[in-house]
Amino acid sequence: MSTPKEPNVASDVETLPFLSTLRWDADGLIPAIVCDARTGEVLMMAWMNEDALRKTVELGVTHFYSRSRKALWRKGETSGHSQAVESIRVDCDADVLLVTVRQAGAACHEGYRTCFFRVVNGRGELDVTEAPVFDAAEVYGEA
Amino acid sequence: MSTPKEPNVASDVETLPFLSTLRWDADGLIPAIVCDARTGEVLMMAWMNEDALRKTVELGVTHFYSRSRKALWRKGETSGHSQAVESIRVDCDADVLLVTVRQAGAACHEGYRTCFFRVVNGRGELDVTEAPVFDAAEVYGEA
Repeated sequence: MSTPKEPNVASDVETLPFLSTLRWDADGLIPAIVCDARTGEVLMMAWMNEDALRKTVELGVTHFYSRSRKALWRKGETSGHSQAVESIRVDCDADVLLVTVRQAGAACHEGYRTCFFRVVNGRGELDVTEAPVFDAAEVYGEA
Repeated sequence: MSTPKEPNVASDVETLPFLSTLRWDADGLIPAIVCDARTGEVLMMAWMNEDALRKTVELGVTHFYSRSRKALWRKGETSGHSQAVESIRVDCDADVLLVTVRQAGAACHEGYRTCFFRVVNGRGELDVTEAPVFDAAEVYGEA
């Protein structure tokens, strides 16, 4: 059933057989959870379309699809805080990706190491649990 | 701007002020990433509606909303593999949750500890990277 393949040849980037197993949503997107290769910590979740996923595999740095801007983006293109891909995992239902990365700088556009810097406290409110590691206004400009 | 609150009273479960900050999708859902309290490993991602999230907070075990079955479900209701909630985090955009749990048994309905038991290899194919920890056919019945 399988076509003979040479490992690690450029044509494999064109093929990427695992893409055919994925279940994209109605908009052609799939959620991609990003975690830190060193600590295992979850850094962020964003969405990929097929183009973003192909570029992520091909170039070895994460690319996503912005639903608000309706455009492909490379993580770190403004901030320099890129994510070098160590592995890409696929869940049992093939509708979620888990991407393990070496994070340059910090993942969150608000300056925090992780986007999940707030926790629900006993009163059902949100507490910030860490300090930013960079000045978001300086990196991205004042909003 | 805030109403005075007593911490840890039952009425707080009714209020849960953080709910008002969340950005639900067009179907009233939010993705919930679940990770293991002991190892930090990402176990699964599923969707919550407000009812599922309220029950998760109130009862301290994860509840989700099944998009295919259009119904609330409690993780472990069939398998016994429930998830006791340690914390709930909210991301910067308030449109993704990160739930840290103590997992009974295994997270994946296919019998694996994590749903992310497959990795993309150098040929763009999927390799299974671990062995199941329970017999899915025995737990859920033959498909």
